[in-house]
Amino acid sequence: MMKAVVLHEADQMRVERRPVPEPGPGEVLLKVNVTSICGTDVKVLHRKLPGQPAGPFIMGHEYAGTVAALGPGVDEFKVGDRVAVEVHKGCERCENCIKGWYTSCLNYGNVAKGHRAKGLTCDGGFAEYAANHVNTVYKLPDNLTFEQACMVTTAASPLWAIDLMGGYLAGETVLVQGPGPIGLLAVQLCKALGAECVILSGTRPERLAIGARLGADVLVNVREESLARRVADITGGKGADSVLECAGGPTSMQEALECVKRGGRIGVVAWYAGPVEMDMNLAVRSNVRIYAARGEGGMSSGRSLALMSAGKLDANAIITHHFALDDVHEAFHTYVDRVGNALKVVMRV
Amino acid sequence: MMKAVVLHEADQMRVERRPVPEPGPGEVLLKVNVTSICGTDVKVLHRKLPGQPAGPFIMGHEYAGTVAALGPGVDEFKVGDRVAVEVHKGCERCENCIKGWYTSCLNYGNVAKGHRAKGLTCDGGFAEYAANHVNTVYKLPDNLTFEQACMVTTAASPLWAIDLMGGYLAGETVLVQGPGPIGLLAVQLCKALGAECVILSGTRPERLAIGARLGADVLVNVREESLARRVADITGGKGADSVLECAGGPTSMQEALECVKRGGRIGVVAWYAGPVEMDMNLAVRSNVRIYAARGEGGMSSGRSLALMSAGKLDANAIITHHFALDDVHEAFHTYVDRVGNALKVVMRV
Amino acid sequence: MMKAVVLHEADQMRVERRPVPEPGPGEVLLKVNVTSICGTDVKVLHRKLPGQPAGPFIMGHEYAGTVAALGPGVDEFKVGDRVAVEVHKGCERCENCIKGWYTSCLNYGNVAKGHRAKGLTCDGGFAEYAANHVNTVYKLPDNLTFEQACMVTTAASPLWAIDLMGGYLAGETVLVQGPGPIGLLAVQLCKALGAECVILSGTRPERLAIGARLGADVLVNVREESLARRVADITGGKGADSVLECAGGPTSMQEALECVKRGGRIGVVAWYAGPVEMDMNLAVRSNVRIYAARGEGGMSSGRSLALMSAGKLDANAIITHHFALDDVHEAFHTYVDRVGNALKVVMRV
Amino acid sequence: MMKAVVLHEADQMRVERRPVPEPGPGEVLLKVNVTSICGTDVKVLHRKLPGQPAGPFIMGHEYAGTVAALGPGVDEFKVGDRVAVEVHKGCERCENCIKGWYTSCLNYGNVAKGHRAKGLTCDGGFAEYAANHVNTVYKLPDNLTFEQACMVTTAASPLWAIDLMGGYLAGETVLVQGPGPIGLLAVQLCKALGAECVILSGTRPERLAIGARLGADVLVNVREESLARRVADITGGKGADSVLECAGGPTSMQEALECVKRGGRIGVVAWYAGPVEMDMNLAVRSNVRIYAARGEGGMSSGRSLALMSAGKLDANAIITHHFALDDVHEAFHTYVDRVGNALKVVMRV
Repeated sequence: MMKAVVLHEADQMRVERRPVPEPGPGEVLLKVNVTSICGTDVKVLHRKLPGQPAGPFIMGHEYAGTVAALGPGVDEFKVGDRVAVEVHKGCERCENCIKGWYTSCLNYGNVAKGHRAKGLTCDGGFAEYAANHVNTVYKLPDNLTFEQACMVTTAASPLWAIDLMGGYLAGETVLVQGPGPIGLLAVQLCKALGAECVILSGTRPERLAIGARLGADVLVNVREESLARRVADITGGKGADSVLECAGGPTSMQEALECVKRGGRIGVVAWYAGPVEMDMNLAVRSNVRIYAARGEGGMSSGRSLALMSAGKLDANAIITHHFALDDVHEAFHTYVDRVGNALKVVMRV
Repeated sequence: MMKAVVLHEADQMRVERRPVPEPGPGEVLLKVNVTSICGTDVKVLHRKLPGQPAGPFIMGHEYAGTVAALGPGVDEFKVGDRVAVEVHKGCERCENCIKGWYTSCLNYGNVAKGHRAKGLTCDGGFAEYAANHVNTVYKLPDNLTFEQACMVTTAASPLWAIDLMGGYLAGETVLVQGPGPIGLLAVQLCKALGAECVILSGTRPERLAIGARLGADVLVNVREESLARRVADITGGKGADSVLECAGGPTSMQEALECVKRGGRIGVVAWYAGPVEMDMNLAVRSNVRIYAARGEGGMSSGRSLALMSAGKLDANAIITHHFALDDVHEAFHTYVDRVGNALKVVMRV
Repeated sequence: MMKAVVLHEADQMRVERRPVPEPGPGEVLLKVNVTSICGTDVKVLHRKLPGQPAGPFIMGHEYAGTVAALGPGVDEFKVGDRVAVEVHKGCERCENCIKGWYTSCLNYGNVAKGHRAKGLTCDGGFAEYAANHVNTVYKLPDNLTFEQACMVTTAASPLWAIDLMGGYLAGETVLVQGPGPIGLLAVQLCKALGAECVILSGTRPERLAIGARLGADVLVNVREESLARRVADITGGKGADSVLECAGGPTSMQEALECVKRGGRIGVVAWYAGPVEMDMNLAVRSNVRIYAARGEGGMSSGRSLALMSAGKLDANAIITHHFALDDVHEAFHTYVDRVGNALKVVMRV
Repeated sequence: MMKAVVLHEADQMRVERRPVPEPGPGEVLLKVNVTSICGTDVKVLHRKLPGQPAGPFIMGHEYAGTVAALGPGVDEFKVGDRVAVEVHKGCERCENCIKGWYTSCLNYGNVAKGHRAKGLTCDGGFAEYAANHVNTVYKLPDNLTFEQACMVTTAASPLWAIDLMGGYLAGETVLVQGPGPIGLLAVQLCKALGAECVILSGTRPERLAIGARLGADVLVNVREESLARRVADITGGKGADSVLECAGGPTSMQEALECVKRGGRIGVVAWYAGPVEMDMNLAVRSNVRIYAARGEGGMSSGRSLALMSAGKLDANAIITHHFALDDVHEAFHTYVDRVGNALKVVMRV
C-alpha cells in the first residue's frame, strides 16, 4: 500500500492509503520523489475538467521520480533511473496518434483504448508510486533535480506551441503575454532558441521583474501603458514577429492580434475563463497564423529537459514554495491564493 | 484618353475621361476587356477601406484584358497576350516581401516604395486601360474567357488559405462555411485537390444548391439544423479535418471551432462586420491551427488559372450578371442588393 | 488450418498448410480475398531484404479481404467489413513512432516491441487468413474491388512522397520518372492533386503509352531524347517544379537534378541496384530539396482509397495478370520476367 | 575614383583605379571598411564560376562598411550607418523571387532583370566603395566590428540550411561535417538554437580543436575512426537527428546518409570537386530529407547578426589573418594555401 492524494467529490481531496499500482506492458513503476501543482489540478479539484473519472482517483500530473520496477517488455529504462514524466499518452490507434498528434488523441480519456492523461483522466502522481507508460517517461539528466524535473510540463507546453509555430525564432522579436509560470518559461525558451528581443507583458510588477531576471528584454505593464503602442515603438511600427499568448485574459487574444506583425504568428498556451472577443479582421488583414497548443505534444518534454540541462532554462526560478505531500491542502491554498507571490508549488513525497 | 470609373467622395463614382496610363519599368499596359465587382469594391465605394487614395482614383481590382504595350525591360509578355491579373504587388524591399509574403507587405499602400493594390490603394482596372507590373500579370490559357479570368482573385484567395493550411487535402473531409462566390470556389478547390467529402454550410437554399452542382457532397442550412451536430454525425464524432471559413458571420468562427477535428486546421477567407466572440478553449483543447489569409498570396492566381483551364474550377457558375462598364451603377446595385440572386457581376469594357 | 505461401530458404517458396492466426489485442483477423506481388516480394523471395525472419514465414504484404474476427478491444471494425491493408505498423514507443513517423520506426523489425512489416519482417498475407493490427486496416469504399484495394500500397508510396514534399502540386509541372506501377500511379496522383502538366519519362513505349492514357501530358523516351533538354523546352528553361523519381536507375537521380527547377523538390520512391552518382553541386546551386519516402507513411493508404473511390486513381489500369494463389510460382514468373508486359500481378485466394 | 581589386583574365587580379559607383534607385553607396575572402572567390579568380561577367569586374562578396550616400527612394538607412551585406538580390519578378526564394532566382546573373550576386555576377566589394541594394544591407549592431560583419555570409549559409531543415534543433543531436569556416559557425549555430549534442567531424586536428572551443560536444577525426560507428555509439544506435554537411568531400554525402537517424534531415552547405557517389537506398530506407542550401537565403544574414550580437556566434574565432586590400595577392595566397592554418582572411580597406 502507498500514500496518495485521492479526489472524491468536488473539493474533497484526501491523503489516503491505496494499493501500489502494477506496471502493465510497456509501463514502468515510479517511486515518486517530487510533485507539483498546476492550474489544471485546481480545475480537477473542483471537478470542472471534462473527462475526469467519475469515482475517486489519484490526482497529479506533474511529478518526477525513480524507476522502481519494469512492466513486461520494457528495456528502455532500468530500475534506479531518475526520470521526468509527461502527462499524455495517446491511444496509438486513432488517426491523430498514428500521425503523431498524441495530445489531440481522438480517444481522449478512453482508458480502454489506451489513452492516458495521468492525474486528469486516470490515476496520477500525487502518490508514493505511479505507473507510467514508457512513452511518457524521460531520463533525467544527472545535473537536474526532481524539483526541476517537475517543471518539465510547464516548459514543454510553450515549447510545443513554438514547435507548432515552426520552431524557428532566431533573430526575432517575440512578445510573451502573461508572466505566470508558463510565460516565464516561454521567455527563457525564446531566448534559448535565439530570439533577439523578448517583450514580456503582464500586470504584476513582481512577476514581470522575475521575467527580466530570466531574460526578458522589455517589460510592459499593461495596466500602465498600451501594449500595442509599446510594441509598435520597439519594432518600428512593424509589430512582433511572433507572439506567445500565455495570459488567458479576456482581451489577450485581441492584444496579440494588435501586436503581431503582418504575416506573423501567434501561439496560444492558455485557458480562458470564457469566450473571448477579437477582431478577426486584424487577423485577415495581416495574414496571421494562430497555433493553439494542447499540452506538451511533440515530445517537447524531452527537448525541454535538454535545454534545462544545458542551463538555458532556469526551472528553479519559478519554484517558490515547497511542501510535503501530506500538506497538500496547504500547498493548494498557497498556489490558488498566490500566498507569498506563489508561482509554482512543489510537494516532496 | 480613356473611359474610367473614378471614385470621388464616398459613394461618388463616375464614368469619366482619364489619360491612358503609361507603363513604367517592369509594367505592361493592358487593354481591359472585362472587369468584375467584389465585396471589397463596395467598401472602397463607401470610402471605408483603410489605405485608399484620398483623392479621386480609378476603382476596380478584378479585371482581365490584352497586353497593349510593354514598359521598359519587359520581355515576359508580348503585345496581344491575353492575361489575367492579381491585385497585390509587394514593395519587394520589406522583409515580408523579400521572404515572399507580398500580400502582407510592410509597406502596404506605400506607392512610393513600390507597393500596389490595384483599385484599392492606387488606380485600378474599371477602365479601358490599366498599367500592371509583370508580377501581377498571368498569361490566360487559351480555353479561358476574360469573364472567367476575372474570377481568378475570387478563386485565388481561398487557394491561398489552402496553401497556408499546408495545401494537402487528399482524402479529407472539409467544411466550407458560406456559399458566396469565395465559398463556392472553395468547394471546387477542395474537390480539385482531392478532398473526399466537402460539407457546405450557409443560409440561402439557392446558393447551397449551386454548391451542390459544383461538387459539395453535403449541404447544411444552418437555419434549419445544428452545423456542429451534423458535422459530428458525418464524421463519426471526429469533426472536419479542415474548415474553410468563408462566411464572415458573427458566429462563424465559433462554429468553425465547434466543427473542426482535434488537431485540425481552419482557414479564414472572410471579412467581418465587427469583432467576433469565440471560445478559445475549444481551440486549445483541440490543438487547432487557424490561418487567416490575406488576399491571393503565394501566386495562387497562377495556380487557379491552371485549375480553371483543366476544367476543375467552373468560374462561370458564379457569374450571374453581365453589364457594360457604362452601367457601373446598375452593376453595383445588382451586386449589393443581390438582385436576381446575384453572385458575381461582370462588366464588359 | 489454412493455405499459405511460405518462404523457406532463398527462392524456396511453397504453398503449405499453416494454422489460422489468432488476432491479438487491437488486431482483426482477415479472410484474405486477393493479394498482389510487389518488387519487394522478389527481394524477399531471394532472401535479400534485411530484417526478414530467419525461419519459414508467410510472404505477402499487398492484400485485401474481409474482417472475419475481432481481437480483444477492437470496435473500429466489425465482422464482414471489406478492408484494405497497409504494410507498416510502428512500435508506437520509439520517438519516431510517437511523432508519427511509423514507417521510419526505430524498432524496425522488432516484433517484440510491436513493430510489424507484414510479409517482410513477420507473417504476411499470401494466405487464406492474416491478422492485422487496426492501425494497418482501412475500410474499403463500396465501389472498390479487392483487386483495386491491393493496389493501395503502390499508390500510397508515391503519395507519401508527395506528402513529404508538401502535398501541394496545384498548377505545377511535375516530372515523373519511371512508368512502372508506382510511376503510373504517381502520374494519376499528380493530376488528381491539381498538377497542370505531368511529364512521364521512361524507356518502354508500351508503358509510356499507358501513362498517356492515365493522364500524362508529355511522354519522354529517354532512349530517344535528352530528358533534361525536353523538360527545359517544356518549361521555358526553368525546369520542373517537382520531380517524382520512381525509376531507380543508375542515372535517374542525376537526371532528376538536371530537370528540377531552382528551388524545386525531388521525391524519391524507388530502390536502387547499387550506389548512384550525382552532381550534388547541381542540388546546391539550385537549392533543391530531396525527400526519400519510405513506404506508405502518413496514413497515405486511406487517402489513396479516397482518391480511388472518387475515380481519380485508376488502379485497374496497372493490373495486367490474374492468378490463383496456388499458382504463385507462375504468378512470380510472370511478374519478374514481365511476361506479356506484366505490370501488377494479382492472386485470388 | 577609388581603389578596387579588378579581375581580368583568369588569375589576373589587379588593384586598380575605378570610378566610384553611383547608387541607383533603392541602393546605398557603401564606404567599404573591411572585406574577406571566401572559397567562391577562388573559383571566381580562376574564372571557373558560371555566370561571371566576361570582362573585367570588381571581385568580392564579403564586405562591410558605412553608408556614404543614399540612392533615390531610400529611407531605410541613413548616411553613417554601419552595415553588413549579403550577396544575393533577387530579380523580384520571377516566380521564385516573388515567393521569397531569392537565392534561387530564375534570372540568376541577369543584371538587366535586376538580379545581383555582388562580386560574382557584377561588381563587388573588394574596393573602397560599393553600391548595394537595400535588400542586401543590414544594420550592424553596435557591439559588432566590421571584421565580424564580414563573417555574416559564412554564418548565414548554414543558417539558411537550418531554416530549410525546419529551423528547430532544440534538444537534438546534430552532426556537423567539416571544420572549415562554415562548419565552425554551423557548430555554434546549432548550439545557439538549442541542440543538445553537436558532433563535429573532420580530418585536421587543429581545426577540430577550434570546434571544441566553439561548443562542439564530440570531435571525430574521420582519419582515425569510423564516423558512422561513433555516431551510432553516441546515439544508442539511432543516428543523428540532423546532419549539416559542410565538408564537400567525395564521401561526405555517403557518410551523412550512414549517420543520420531514420526520419532525419541532412542540410548541405558545401561545394564538391565533382560528382559524388551515394547509396540512395539508405536514404529511402530511412525516409531521409536532404536540403541543399544555396547561399544565405531567407534573410539569414539578419538573423545571424542578431545571434552574433547576443554573443552566441563568435565570428572572431574563425578570423585568423588580417591584411590591407593592397596586399590582396598575399591574402589570397594565405587563404588558398592555408598558410599558418588560415581559416578566414580579412582585408582592411
